[in-house]
Amino acid sequence: MNEITVQSKSRTAFIDITSVVQQFAAEKKMHEGLITVFVPHTTAGVTINENADPDVTADMETILDRMIPWNGGYRHGEGNTAAHVKASLMGSSVQVIVENCKLRLGTWQSIYFCEFDGPRIRNVWLKESA
Amino acid sequence: MNEITVQSKSRTAFIDITSVVQQFAAEKKMHEGLITVFVPHTTAGVTINENADPDVTADMETILDRMIPWNGGYRHGEGNTAAHVKASLMGSSVQVIVENCKLRLGTWQSIYFCEFDGPRIRNVWLKESA
Amino acid sequence: MNEITVQSKSRTAFIDITSVVQQFAAEKKMHEGLITVFVPHTTAGVTINENADPDVTADMETILDRMIPWNGGYRHGEGNTAAHVKASLMGSSVQVIVENCKLRLGTWQSIYFCEFDGPRIRNVWLKESA
Repeated sequence: MNEITVQSKSRTAFIDITSVVQQFAAEKKMHEGLITVFVPHTTAGVTINENADPDVTADMETILDRMIPWNGGYRHGEGNTAAHVKASLMGSSVQVIVENCKLRLGTWQSIYFCEFDGPRIRNVWLKESA
Repeated sequence: MNEITVQSKSRTAFIDITSVVQQFAAEKKMHEGLITVFVPHTTAGVTINENADPDVTADMETILDRMIPWNGGYRHGEGNTAAHVKASLMGSSVQVIVENCKLRLGTWQSIYFCEFDGPRIRNVWLKESA
Repeated sequence: MNEITVQSKSRTAFIDITSVVQQFAAEKKMHEGLITVFVPHTTAGVTINENADPDVTADMETILDRMIPWNGGYRHGEGNTAAHVKASLMGSSVQVIVENCKLRLGTWQSIYFCEFDGPRIRNVWLKESA
């Protein structure tokens, strides 16, 4: 298992980590297999979405904020309930297929670390399987 | 890795691909393992849900449309932001357990390709692991 | 593959199953690998979220109810459409990394079975991979 570090700079952010995951596949010399990208936090998640136009992830942040407002009269005393819910909606892991040491992703796909309670220094765990 | 093709016929559609995934497990003679069903698109996803009453997936399409309206004043110039968000909510992959060349699914479960920006010809990638 | 049983006591409930998954990893003597936690139901799901303050999952139940009200004029005759949608939003499986027979989870993470149409007796399937 490898651990990478991600630094977020605002409360919510979608940070493209594709190149780091690609580097992991190359270093592990993965002929073929799967990589599980796992986020060990409860106010951040991971998703795969469009890499071409940064407005897509900006819109996603806006829509998630509309769906789950930061101030919603929640019980959780820390005040970051919205971040916990968004984390579960995006999910704690994604799976990516690897062939010949290369990630197999669609043309427009990137892997995004989803920060919902930043800015923070975060970890992401990468695990290969055959 | 195998690639299958899915043809959607409307903007949103839940298309049952269980039998194709089952065929893959049989062809690969998978004694036991997992299949990862991966969608290489950013305006489509994949989920597992009820196969008995088609009203369930029809309701899901309606509810997702209410939650994330197609016209929402989004920034993304292509105008299909809602499809991108729905794709991340459903997710880009599902995992299914295989035993004796058969998918292990619950009684009412099917695997659905989720089209959110059709009609289009789409791909789905299938990858076995042990 | 192992099957465990979960008893829910209300319509919606987040039930911590981490210790049972940990026990599975220990019994299988998993030096390293992944466990897939799969829910074979269509009105229940599984997610990873905070284990410290029970208000977090209570808030999540409330927010999901606001987003997808139980009574929404749905077509599905059984009347539990909301539960089906919530199940797909949380997802049917999670992946957890195992090292030296221990689950690798973040400090605040637990694995939650998500009941959305209880009370019922439910199953969860656990599958290891290398």
